[in-house]
Amino acid sequence: MEESKKLSDIKDFGEFALIDHLTKNFSLKNASSSFGVGDDAAVISISETEVCLLSTDMLVEGVHFDLMYTPMKHLGYKSVSVNVSDICAMNGIAEQITVSIAVSSRFSTEALEELYSGIHLACENFKVDLVGGDTTTSISGLTISISVLGRAQKENVVYRSGAKEFDLLVVTGDLGAAYLGLQLLEREKDVFKANAQIQPDLDGHDYIIERQLKPEARIDVIGFLKELGVQPTAMIDVSDGLASEILHICKASKVGCHLYDEKIPIDTKTSMTAIEFNMDPTTCALNGGEDYELLFTIKQEDFEKIKGNPHMTVIGHITDEKEGIYLVDKNGSALTLKAQGWKHF
Amino acid sequence: MEESKKLSDIKDFGEFALIDHLTKNFSLKNASSSFGVGDDAAVISISETEVCLLSTDMLVEGVHFDLMYTPMKHLGYKSVSVNVSDICAMNGIAEQITVSIAVSSRFSTEALEELYSGIHLACENFKVDLVGGDTTTSISGLTISISVLGRAQKENVVYRSGAKEFDLLVVTGDLGAAYLGLQLLEREKDVFKANAQIQPDLDGHDYIIERQLKPEARIDVIGFLKELGVQPTAMIDVSDGLASEILHICKASKVGCHLYDEKIPIDTKTSMTAIEFNMDPTTCALNGGEDYELLFTIKQEDFEKIKGNPHMTVIGHITDEKEGIYLVDKNGSALTLKAQGWKHF
Repeated sequence: MEESKKLSDIKDFGEFALIDHLTKNFSLKNASSSFGVGDDAAVISISETEVCLLSTDMLVEGVHFDLMYTPMKHLGYKSVSVNVSDICAMNGIAEQITVSIAVSSRFSTEALEELYSGIHLACENFKVDLVGGDTTTSISGLTISISVLGRAQKENVVYRSGAKEFDLLVVTGDLGAAYLGLQLLEREKDVFKANAQIQPDLDGHDYIIERQLKPEARIDVIGFLKELGVQPTAMIDVSDGLASEILHICKASKVGCHLYDEKIPIDTKTSMTAIEFNMDPTTCALNGGEDYELLFTIKQEDFEKIKGNPHMTVIGHITDEKEGIYLVDKNGSALTLKAQGWKHF
Repeated sequence: MEESKKLSDIKDFGEFALIDHLTKNFSLKNASSSFGVGDDAAVISISETEVCLLSTDMLVEGVHFDLMYTPMKHLGYKSVSVNVSDICAMNGIAEQITVSIAVSSRFSTEALEELYSGIHLACENFKVDLVGGDTTTSISGLTISISVLGRAQKENVVYRSGAKEFDLLVVTGDLGAAYLGLQLLEREKDVFKANAQIQPDLDGHDYIIERQLKPEARIDVIGFLKELGVQPTAMIDVSDGLASEILHICKASKVGCHLYDEKIPIDTKTSMTAIEFNMDPTTCALNGGEDYELLFTIKQEDFEKIKGNPHMTVIGHITDEKEGIYLVDKNGSALTLKAQGWKHF
């Protein structure tokens, strides 16, 4: 090897920047490829009025999950859920998945059966069909790659790029719980590692632990929006933390945003655990990630339709791009919003 | 842990049996899911006359490829090719792919750029669009998971299950070269490991090495079949070796088969290398795998259409299931055909 030039470290890139960099020379050639890389799912035209939505996610042991506290069944369920969530984020209905796993010989058949029982339960709950996949050996650990195919009317597809000035910013459910669930599981793991006689103390924390281990894709919200006659102007799912997702929408839509600190929906159990960990609940909601709620923008005229809806909270509004992206606190002070979401590099 | 029961080893299953076992409780619920697990791709109904085809493959470093002799660009190309080949095997046209990679920090940005340049070249050659994916870190090694979406007229889709008694068995191109390319690369790797001063001796072996490192999905054959007006009755791609693929077609179609030893197309360069390795060329063709040729059955009345076609060779014929599956040699002796294809468990 005559390699003398210093090679670049992939850690120099964030995850999103690396994908952008590697795929920058790719262009779309087929008429059916309506939209490629850069949203929650690709959009494939299948008729005058209908599209398929295609998305994929890979989960790697030791990076995305820790089998010391993640039951295989929950892992299977979550793997499907995060993929279905990507289809929800396009305002579509997930219909099929393929599941590929690479698994080392330290896993028993029974462990894989548990994994697939979680995948099966998720398929039932989210009404998707397992239609294919691949099972192979790995040198070490478990890697799960799921692809999901969804369907939507062309006119109903919601991209990240459609937000307009004056639109309202809405989030579903509550935020930060999945992150604090993870903190709690990590703490109890450390305690257990220090002394295996000490049983994990997870009492009273069912909610945040379930939010971490078994997140639910919000297919219900897609139904609610349809019933309410609300077509979001932009949408994304909250996988990397609220701040990161807001920045994605603003970048894609070329707009600014005012996010109101005190409007961010945080469950009391989440806040209490945050305080127990000496953490700010809002920071957990902004940067924690893995809540798999939906973040979307709607026209002001649609506000009456969602007002009082227990699943949706207006947390801000869209501004002109030049105004910037701000987190506004109770006193009216504005801080530039920054993403400190999960970086897997 | 109160686990006392002995857990089962996943090695007790073959790859196909393990997938069957894990997915046996899954049923198809959505009207659009025409065909799920069990063929080269799933079939998704998108209109009265058209279907989407969905398939996925995972390639794991140290299991499916060895970076000691696999250039990253070739690896990227091959990863796409093997997926496109699955769509060809359904008589469809591949149109979109998603690419997910998990990669450890030992890989440089330049190495990933090489990988993606191979993916890019394959996208150009096979006329598919990269529409999505995921890039994440891994604890060790490189894992590539690609999903492919294809399109076909519903009436043109070819399953493994359609072969009928008296149909002719046809294979494209020639077989065994990819396997011998691998043997050669492995041998030179061992030589190099023993003495790093010795340069690899690959002279005159370009053909078989290219067949291993850069297989071509036979999208040309799908075009030829259309031009010739030949609709295969059953089809599969040769990824695990001719014997294994014949057994898949016979099992799915509930038929038997007579395969004629001397008809199997083997390139002279392949035969010569086999002899150099003290291996039987036919055995390499039967069990080697990774040729990514197409194996299909046609009605006898279509024989005239393919007769003399340089890309297609009739290698046998389909019999009643009760007659069994046999390899017939020059002297007319028949041996029961067994698959000794690659097992990744």
